Amino acid sequence: MKIISGGVCAAQGFKANGIHCGIRKNKTKRDVALIASEVPAAAAAVYTTNLVKGAPLTVTKNHIANGIAQAVICNSGNANTCNADGIEVAEKMSELTANELGIRADDVVVASTGVIGQPLDITPIATGLPALAAGLSADGGEAAAEAIMTTDTVKKEIAVEFEVGGKTCKIGGIAKGSGMIHPNMATMLVFITTDAAISAQMLQKALSADIVNTFNMVSIDGDTSTNDMVTVLANGMAGNAEITADGADFDAFMKALNTVTVYLCRMIAADGEGATKMLECKVSGALNEKTAKVVAKSVICSSLLKAAMFGADANWGRVLCAIGYSGASVDVNRVDVTFKSKAGEVSVCKNGAGIEFSEDIAKKVLLEKEIEIIVSVGDGDGTATAWGCDLTYDYVKINGDYRT
Amino acid sequence: MKIISGGVCAAQGFKANGIHCGIRKNKTKRDVALIASEVPAAAAAVYTTNLVKGAPLTVTKNHIANGIAQAVICNSGNANTCNADGIEVAEKMSELTANELGIRADDVVVASTGVIGQPLDITPIATGLPALAAGLSADGGEAAAEAIMTTDTVKKEIAVEFEVGGKTCKIGGIAKGSGMIHPNMATMLVFITTDAAISAQMLQKALSADIVNTFNMVSIDGDTSTNDMVTVLANGMAGNAEITADGADFDAFMKALNTVTVYLCRMIAADGEGATKMLECKVSGALNEKTAKVVAKSVICSSLLKAAMFGADANWGRVLCAIGYSGASVDVNRVDVTFKSKAGEVSVCKNGAGIEFSEDIAKKVLLEKEIEIIVSVGDGDGTATAWGCDLTYDYVKINGDYRT
Repeated sequence: MKIISGGVCAAQGFKANGIHCGIRKNKTKRDVALIASEVPAAAAAVYTTNLVKGAPLTVTKNHIANGIAQAVICNSGNANTCNADGIEVAEKMSELTANELGIRADDVVVASTGVIGQPLDITPIATGLPALAAGLSADGGEAAAEAIMTTDTVKKEIAVEFEVGGKTCKIGGIAKGSGMIHPNMATMLVFITTDAAISAQMLQKALSADIVNTFNMVSIDGDTSTNDMVTVLANGMAGNAEITADGADFDAFMKALNTVTVYLCRMIAADGEGATKMLECKVSGALNEKTAKVVAKSVICSSLLKAAMFGADANWGRVLCAIGYSGASVDVNRVDVTFKSKAGEVSVCKNGAGIEFSEDIAKKVLLEKEIEIIVSVGDGDGTATAWGCDLTYDYVKINGDYRT
Repeated sequence: MKIISGGVCAAQGFKANGIHCGIRKNKTKRDVALIASEVPAAAAAVYTTNLVKGAPLTVTKNHIANGIAQAVICNSGNANTCNADGIEVAEKMSELTANELGIRADDVVVASTGVIGQPLDITPIATGLPALAAGLSADGGEAAAEAIMTTDTVKKEIAVEFEVGGKTCKIGGIAKGSGMIHPNMATMLVFITTDAAISAQMLQKALSADIVNTFNMVSIDGDTSTNDMVTVLANGMAGNAEITADGADFDAFMKALNTVTVYLCRMIAADGEGATKMLECKVSGALNEKTAKVVAKSVICSSLLKAAMFGADANWGRVLCAIGYSGASVDVNRVDVTFKSKAGEVSVCKNGAGIEFSEDIAKKVLLEKEIEIIVSVGDGDGTATAWGCDLTYDYVKINGDYRT
């Protein structure tokens, strides 16, 4: 398996584009993305568990109930959520897209991201669609990645090449997500494309299994969005024998998918609103995997620890505190904590109590951009990794006045 | 019932003091508090549910297992938590206090608050105790309230006078709490004293029932402290017939206790680390009280909403979002939201969708120091109130470098 360029267009038969159509006032910011496959593709998706669900999610769920999709339309700047005409507008987006591409409206995945509760005017999308579709190209992945950004500061894309049954397959994806990120059984907006041939059922199985260890282990601010969604389209153009059951081929696909999703998780965490650091909490020795996950997420979610990491302060008591209130069954007298980065590592807690350590070394370790918080528990062999970021002045600034 | 002065010394037979003994470097900051009753008192307490528990809590729990206590010793600047010698040091604090006051060591409530995981040196406490005890007075409540402060910016005390069986009783309390506040079945440090005569059993019943609607409904940052504790000492010196069962006397006591606890809750929320505003979320029409509580707390805990309130931004979509991911069973299409303060009120959402409102009026409402977020649900008659504060630059500043 190797990392390749092309992002969401790396896989055969996928083209993309992103333009400014006028939803956002800033004319230099692309605000609508289109991804299209030459042929109908197997489709799978997972959605937010927030009871308040964006209208586009409801429409997408209906459209891919048959396991097939051929295009993705996504705007930024407006979430089309909590609007009386939300479903109607999302259906209209699908129809306009389908007409432009000459495909079926129910083969369109529709998504929106941005402010909640402001009616989404379809006019700029309708006006922009011809140019958006005309500009579709195999080089358009980057433009699409840019068009779905909201408070993101960097575009998020990746692609990898892998082998299935002697055939070379490709899988790539783009993601947006910076704030309101605390996925639960689903996640921020992620669109993944692959030319591997895989049945819709196995594709859904792969995605559902993967997100439990990837997107669901990311938290920026503890707020689970109303519009979270991950979709995968698999158009089969790599020509491998279709994956229809468990086995070596499915494992190879899972591994490639996981490479894409972990990369995007880390990018999302590193680009958390206002973040200066990416935090990775690795838990081992927990009673079981579920317990390890609860512990890792509790640590990553602690506002106090996040602020301490911003200040490069080795305040490990906040790690212990977060483990203690996580609700997980943990023998707190057998917890060890180490901070690690490319500048080195420093053990700060053994068996639940502080140990002497060099504050100078700790400072050096914590001044890096990527910090590992390594938690070792003495209860079993459960392991888990969670990703997050520090809490900074800029998080407050960005969210103190988001709408205006 | 009327509010009176005197705080934790308002009730007959209670004296208090607070001095600087040397745990903190800053010599102008009092760092140890002592509260003593002339006679042994009925005692009740609730503790943090964090698995990591401060050593003083374990010692206090043992000491008041018999329902009796006569004094409270509490230091700030060091939590005496996650230390190998924690229990030993907490027992020593009790012994030294008891010796100084001529009471039993197991009639002492011991508490500590501050940094986790740094050994607590008993020397300054031992050295300071004679002066601390010698200075006990009925005017010492304020000094005690100051001595337990950590990142608090204001001391928190209140007392009320009420009638039980024709006798005038008094109840007063002090509290500390500003960060690491998200109590769960217990709370920040609160010491309450009363001269009402009430059995230890009924005192515990009153306290346990009260905190469910008061301290457990406060959140500053979602972090449940390791050292949270509320204790009440009732020395019976008011001379009322001892309250030993439910009835009018118990109800009168509950009402007075609740007045004290709600006041302290609001003070703690308003003085949240870095806070510029107190937020009060009032939920009505929920399926039941439990559901109402889950909704109110989810809204109060949302980092995104807290940052929006700091920016006086009427971003009600974040209220809906927080309700949606709360886990509570709510018909999101029947949710109304209103923002209210002494500057007026503004309805922003009806039946789960946005309505037109004046941004100017909303701004005026949200620029006040105390904001009500009124959530009306259409599922039943459950109500609840939760308290919190906005998320500000100063929260990050305070917690980015707390230890040094």
